[in-house]
Amino acid sequence: MKIGVLGTGAAGQTLAGKFVEMGHDVMMGARSADNEKVLGFAERTGAKAGTFAEAAAFGDLVVNCTRGESSLATLSQLAPELANKTLVDVANPLDFSQGYPPHLSVSNTDSLAEQIQRALPQTFVVKSLNTVNASVMVDPSRVPGRHTVFVSGNDKRAKGHVSDLLRSLGWQSIIDLGDITTARAAEQILPLWVRLYGVLGTADFNIAVMKR
Amino acid sequence: MKIGVLGTGAAGQTLAGKFVEMGHDVMMGARSADNEKVLGFAERTGAKAGTFAEAAAFGDLVVNCTRGESSLATLSQLAPELANKTLVDVANPLDFSQGYPPHLSVSNTDSLAEQIQRALPQTFVVKSLNTVNASVMVDPSRVPGRHTVFVSGNDKRAKGHVSDLLRSLGWQSIIDLGDITTARAAEQILPLWVRLYGVLGTADFNIAVMKR
Repeated sequence: MKIGVLGTGAAGQTLAGKFVEMGHDVMMGARSADNEKVLGFAERTGAKAGTFAEAAAFGDLVVNCTRGESSLATLSQLAPELANKTLVDVANPLDFSQGYPPHLSVSNTDSLAEQIQRALPQTFVVKSLNTVNASVMVDPSRVPGRHTVFVSGNDKRAKGHVSDLLRSLGWQSIIDLGDITTARAAEQILPLWVRLYGVLGTADFNIAVMKR
Repeated sequence: MKIGVLGTGAAGQTLAGKFVEMGHDVMMGARSADNEKVLGFAERTGAKAGTFAEAAAFGDLVVNCTRGESSLATLSQLAPELANKTLVDVANPLDFSQGYPPHLSVSNTDSLAEQIQRALPQTFVVKSLNTVNASVMVDPSRVPGRHTVFVSGNDKRAKGHVSDLLRSLGWQSIIDLGDITTARAAEQILPLWVRLYGVLGTADFNIAVMKR
């Protein structure tokens, strides 16, 4: 599959690297085509490098790994390139401007994923993977047990595609929370993630939903 | 132990009933001493009935099971009765006034537990049990596996007492998230709880924190 990965941080590097390993055709996009991180990634992996717009146009499926604080501004420019495509939003609207712990710049009655969906009405936005560290996203077996990843989105077919991709990464417990407004719930777990990271001393953790 | 339970809803009835069963000396408090629910509870269980102030004065440990929307107003009146005591806050600031799904009336940069702690500076507020249904609070074995309950509070000794009480209820995985500001994280799981309740079709569920 042709996958566009937007963003060059830890999530972008880790996901794009894994997609290359799995045999997908990957382009990583950055603000500018001569971005050192994206050129370095392409050199190391043989993947393609481009701008955000080029990577968005390239992918049959596109993953938003830009920082939460800039995601909306970046993606709003890419409506034509992202039309009729599935966009997996793994970003979190974490605001560190007031120090630790970060708060959410949007939450409770709205979410980053909803903002993105409103800005890209012709794109099938699916929130997922935002509740775990990048290393766990691509290798859930780093955490023992049958722990959970969530999907939220308005389009069932797009959620199905994303769930297939998640299964190919090794995810076994995938819970469809509902439409894109349920991304509020997934994004509001982040404050717990941040505290657990402090308490547990490792990013290799996750939550498992257990029921009777 | 003498336990005061404030509130006559599902959480109050379930917790107070279990405490009676366990042999604790329990008083349930309501807005007025002639409240039907509190009188019915006392009649059924042999426990004591009283006003909020009487139950707060009675307990060596007091549990806030009032509705989140009225907790702060109720508890603010009880500063003398609650001084130098541990108050377990199991309430959630859920606001259903705009329909389903509820949003949180306080969140992100503050929490109900912090509001209560600020109103009761001489009380040791410990947030706990708010992340599960009442039936699971008192019987975690309703959900299979080693799932997790959280404690948040400024006073280590008070958190130790509450953790002892949790263990006596059968809880095995108890995570101390930190000071009372970490109650934001615990309260912000509620939107996920609400969505999971819709998806799973049962309230007998919980999350387990799993780590490498």
